[in-house]
Amino acid sequence: MKALGISYKNAPLSVREQFSFDAQKRGAIRSALGSAVVICTCNRTELYFTGADTGEAAALFTEMPDAGNITEYLRVYEDAGALRHLFRVTCGIDSMILGEDEILRQVKEAYAEASDAGSTDFELNTAFQAAITCAKRIKTETSLSKTPVSAATIAANEAARLGGNVNVLMIGASGKIGSSTLKNLLPRPNVHITQTARAHSAGTVQYDGVRTVPYDRRYDFADGADCIISATSSPHFTLTKERLGAVLHTNKPRLLIDLAVPPDIERTVAGIDGVRLIGIDDLGELARRNNELKMSAAEQAELIISEELDELQKKLAFHEFLPHLDKARESAERLTFGELLYKLRDGLDSTQFAAVLDVMRGLE
Amino acid sequence: MKALGISYKNAPLSVREQFSFDAQKRGAIRSALGSAVVICTCNRTELYFTGADTGEAAALFTEMPDAGNITEYLRVYEDAGALRHLFRVTCGIDSMILGEDEILRQVKEAYAEASDAGSTDFELNTAFQAAITCAKRIKTETSLSKTPVSAATIAANEAARLGGNVNVLMIGASGKIGSSTLKNLLPRPNVHITQTARAHSAGTVQYDGVRTVPYDRRYDFADGADCIISATSSPHFTLTKERLGAVLHTNKPRLLIDLAVPPDIERTVAGIDGVRLIGIDDLGELARRNNELKMSAAEQAELIISEELDELQKKLAFHEFLPHLDKARESAERLTFGELLYKLRDGLDSTQFAAVLDVMRGLE
Repeated sequence: MKALGISYKNAPLSVREQFSFDAQKRGAIRSALGSAVVICTCNRTELYFTGADTGEAAALFTEMPDAGNITEYLRVYEDAGALRHLFRVTCGIDSMILGEDEILRQVKEAYAEASDAGSTDFELNTAFQAAITCAKRIKTETSLSKTPVSAATIAANEAARLGGNVNVLMIGASGKIGSSTLKNLLPRPNVHITQTARAHSAGTVQYDGVRTVPYDRRYDFADGADCIISATSSPHFTLTKERLGAVLHTNKPRLLIDLAVPPDIERTVAGIDGVRLIGIDDLGELARRNNELKMSAAEQAELIISEELDELQKKLAFHEFLPHLDKARESAERLTFGELLYKLRDGLDSTQFAAVLDVMRGLE
Repeated sequence: MKALGISYKNAPLSVREQFSFDAQKRGAIRSALGSAVVICTCNRTELYFTGADTGEAAALFTEMPDAGNITEYLRVYEDAGALRHLFRVTCGIDSMILGEDEILRQVKEAYAEASDAGSTDFELNTAFQAAITCAKRIKTETSLSKTPVSAATIAANEAARLGGNVNVLMIGASGKIGSSTLKNLLPRPNVHITQTARAHSAGTVQYDGVRTVPYDRRYDFADGADCIISATSSPHFTLTKERLGAVLHTNKPRLLIDLAVPPDIERTVAGIDGVRLIGIDDLGELARRNNELKMSAAEQAELIISEELDELQKKLAFHEFLPHLDKARESAERLTFGELLYKLRDGLDSTQFAAVLDVMRGLE
C-alpha cells in the first residue's frame, strides 16, 4: 500500500481548503487509482492506494487549478511506512488534538464509501479493518481519548458531571477560554446555559439554546445556577462573597469555577454554605497531571499500534506467499529437517535464524 | 560470552599499569573463571569468558591492592555486545590508532595462550577464531591498516620507498615531528640514517645504527644522501639553493622533505638537477586525503564486522540448538507444511516471518 496527501502538519488551511474533495471527486480519484480510499477532513486530505504509483497519485493533487507549489506540502508513505501512517491517523495519534476520536469515524466512513463503491482490494480491506480494530483497542485499553488536557475542557467536564440537570451561569463567555468552555458545554444535553453580556458589547455570540442576560444582572441569576463559571479579563472581582452570600437562598451544592487571571471570584466565597470553588491553579495542576497521563497513554497506544501492525504485516506477507505455497510445500517435503534448517540458516540473518530455532525448540 | 575490562578509552595509564598481569596471573585468572581469555596490552586489560558471571570477573579487578575506584573504569559487555566488542578490538577499530594491527597479534597470542592451557570452550574458540578471520579479511579487503595519516609516517614512507638502500639525512630529529619521523624510519631495514645535532644540544637522542654528525657539517653529508628530511624550529633556512647546489656532485635523484613551519628548505632547490621537494603543505593534503580514505575504510570494516559477526551468531545459535535437534525434528515431521508455517507465523515477528517465507519461496 502507498499513501499520499496533505495535512495540518505541513499545509496551511488555505491550501487544505482547495483539496476538500466532494463525493463525486472522491469517486473520480478512486477510479483513477484503481484501488483506493480517500480520506478528506478539515485537517487532512489523504489517498491510500495499492495499484497506481505515487506519481499518478501526486498528479491528482498537482493538476488541480490553483494547486500552486502543492508538492512542497505533499507527504508520501510507502509499504510499511504507509501502513503505520494509516494506523497512526486512524488512532488519533497523528491528530492535532492527540487521541481525538472524530477521525476514527471519518476513516470508517471513507473506507465504507470506497468499499461500497468496489474500490478496495485485499490489501486495502485488510489494512483498514486492522487499523479500525487497532483504534478500538486503543480506545478500550488506554485513556488516550478520555483524558482532557485543556482547562476549558476540564471545567466543562466538572460542570457537566454535577447532576442530571445542571444550570450553568457563564460570566465572560466571549473571551478565549470562556468561549472554549462554552463550546465544550454546548453539546451536553444535561447542561442548561445562561451567559452574561455587557451592554453595548459586540463580542457576545448568541448560540441556540443559550439564554443571554445583562452582565449587571448576574447576581439575579446566581441562585438558580448549580455552577457559575467566570472567565472575564476584568481587573475587578465579578463575584464577591458579600453580594453572592446575599443572593444565594436555595440550599444546594454549588460549584464555582474561576478561569480568570487575575481572579474573578473572591476566594472567600468558599466560606458560603454549599459553595465549592475551583481556581485556575487547580485546573492547571489537573491539566498537567492529565497531560502526563495522556503522554503515557500515547506511549501505550504506540505499542498497541506496533503489535497490531505486526499482525497485519504477517497477514499481508502470508497472502502474498499463497500463490507459491504448493510449490514451496513440494520443495520443503523433499528436504530433510536438517537440510531445511541449513536453507533457513543461509537465507536468514542471525536474529531471524535464532528466532526460527526458538520456534522449532518450542514445537510439541 | 561476556567481556569485562579497562582500556585507554576511560582508564588513565596510571590505572592500566596496575593491571598489566603477567603470565602467571593470567593463568590464575583463567582458572578462576573456568573458560576465559585474558588480553593484556599497554592499552587494555580485558577478560573474555563464558562460565562465570560478571560479578566474579569484576572481583578479579576490584580485589587487587591499590585498585582504588577501579569500578568507574570497568566496562562490561554481554552476549552480542561482547562478541561485537571482541571483533572491534581484534580488528583495530577500538584502538587508539585506528586500524593498527599490532592488536591482532596480541589477540592471537592471548587466545593461543588460553587455548594451549585448555581454558577455552566451544563459544570462546568459535568467537576468537571468527574475530581473527574477520581481522584478516579487513586487512585484505580494506586499506584500513595501510593508510598512514600522520605527516611523519607519510614522510617516512616516501623516504623508505625510494629504493633498495636509502641514505637519509635527518636535520632536526629532536623536535616532535622530526623524532616521530625518525622513529618511523628506524625499523625499516633498507633505510640508513644520519642525523645532525647542534653543538652542546641536549635534545638529540642517540639510537642504535643512527650516525650523528654536527649540524654545522650538514652540507658535507648532503651529497651522500638519497633523501634529506628537515624538521627544525629554526626561523632560517637549514638548506639554501646556493649552498646545496655547490655540494651535490653525484648525479642521482634526490628527495627533499621539508616538515618545518616556517620552511627549512629554500623552495628554489627544486631547480637543482634531480631534486624533488615535498613541503608540509603537500604532506598535509596527503594526510587529509588519507584520513578520508581511512574513514571510509573504517566504514567498510564495520560492515565486514557486522557480516562476520552475523555468521558467528548463527553458528553459536545452531550449536545451542543441537541438543534439541532430534526432538524438534520428530515434532516438525508430525506437522504438515501448512501447520509448520502457522507455528512459525505465531512465534515470529512480521519481518522474521516474511524472511522465512522468502526462503521457502526460494527453495528448489
